[in-house]
Amino acid sequence: MASHSLTLTSSPSSFNLCSSHRPHLSTNFFTLHFPCPGKRSGLGLRCSFSIEKEVLHPKNPVAPTLHFNIRYFETDAPKDVPGAPRQWWFGNGTDLTPAYIFEEDVKHFDSIQKQACDKFDPSFYPRFKKCCDDYFYIKHGDERRGLGGIFFDDLNYYDQEMLLSFATECASSVIPAYILIVEKRKDTPFTEQHKAWQQLRRGRYVEFNLVYDHCPQILKTGGRIENILVSLPLSARWEYDHEWKLLDACINPKEWI
Amino acid sequence: MASHSLTLTSSPSSFNLCSSHRPHLSTNFFTLHFPCPGKRSGLGLRCSFSIEKEVLHPKNPVAPTLHFNIRYFETDAPKDVPGAPRQWWFGNGTDLTPAYIFEEDVKHFDSIQKQACDKFDPSFYPRFKKCCDDYFYIKHGDERRGLGGIFFDDLNYYDQEMLLSFATECASSVIPAYILIVEKRKDTPFTEQHKAWQQLRRGRYVEFNLVYDHCPQILKTGGRIENILVSLPLSARWEYDHEWKLLDACINPKEWI
Repeated sequence: MASHSLTLTSSPSSFNLCSSHRPHLSTNFFTLHFPCPGKRSGLGLRCSFSIEKEVLHPKNPVAPTLHFNIRYFETDAPKDVPGAPRQWWFGNGTDLTPAYIFEEDVKHFDSIQKQACDKFDPSFYPRFKKCCDDYFYIKHGDERRGLGGIFFDDLNYYDQEMLLSFATECASSVIPAYILIVEKRKDTPFTEQHKAWQQLRRGRYVEFNLVYDHCPQILKTGGRIENILVSLPLSARWEYDHEWKLLDACINPKEWI
Repeated sequence: MASHSLTLTSSPSSFNLCSSHRPHLSTNFFTLHFPCPGKRSGLGLRCSFSIEKEVLHPKNPVAPTLHFNIRYFETDAPKDVPGAPRQWWFGNGTDLTPAYIFEEDVKHFDSIQKQACDKFDPSFYPRFKKCCDDYFYIKHGDERRGLGGIFFDDLNYYDQEMLLSFATECASSVIPAYILIVEKRKDTPFTEQHKAWQQLRRGRYVEFNLVYDHCPQILKTGGRIENILVSLPLSARWEYDHEWKLLDACINPKEWI
């Protein structure tokens, strides 16, 4: 797998992809590094950032999708405010999106993240879990993109070195936890119906990424398209009334004959 | 095919689907009618509207996708402006989205639309063609969703009866023109590569509908999800660097060995 070191980087508006890797056409896997020199932000501030981002969409419908990223941003102090401090902050988004639930897998995945959080602050896990549930919300479906994980942004009110250790801990623990799940599920036999259901759920994944998330803003304001769209699954599917018809019939009893 | 009569309808915010039909899982085809009583708009005005919308995504990769809709909106005069006229306007969006170009098909499709326009005003076709090219623009890819057609909105500065005839003419001519193309292409043999290319182009279709168009606003503000998402293709595909790699190499010569 990719390394998880944080690399100081730059240019939030250009999103230059300096490294990418896709081992299999049916698996979207990529890592972003931004080792370019710092550029000026829209506020006239010199801005650097580092993002480690990975998205895996397995072929097997019973193996879950993983999205994981760690972000570090840093700006110079404004020139017109002498003595003002540099601004910096950490961000993280990690969520597991299965098409089928195996409770033991989700418990395993969440407990690994809780352990990583608890090493630094017992308030982290419950707070960041709730942030995750809130963030990956598909309003038009009144559901989450998946089963969640942890999410935080603008985290700068702790010691910087402590947060770097925390970010490193998150990065180091999440991939092995995920790999364990994939190893267990990747050879499970599946039918066309399992695959079709996975594809429908990936339609929701596409909806979240294109309608919510940061994608719409970035796509509209510029940037290298492939860097943004690479988080989408290889393929997705939409079927009219697939779930609605059943739910509607259960909620509103009908005369069937 | 569905009838093309305009039906006075209501409630832009609820988008109740009163009629839908999908003859085949691989073909998204639907017609919206809104025969509900008028409701009050956000401005406190009583608002009625009618939409006839059809989207067809054929299975065969050499048969193009069609999107077509005609819209009529009407509001009561504001109560606090005595003597103010009712507001009303027509809208139309028609565009052809092939995965492979057959010039004769596009010429046929466009000439049918030009004929419909020219019956009413010689300025219509060039104006509405340009509006279409401008509207179905995918900014992040710097390309159009397809090959265009005609598009107009807020059209109310002509005689109302004339515009109703024009809308009816558009509706009556576009479907037979499209059917002629599909009849000609639907049995063309195709390979997996043709299908994969169609699926990639449908990825762009999904991007336009979810990032641009009216979908993002409607999805975020409420409404029945299926009515909005039904215009998406049955399935779509994304591959990292599929086109970019070739274009980039052509624009920026590389050392290959």
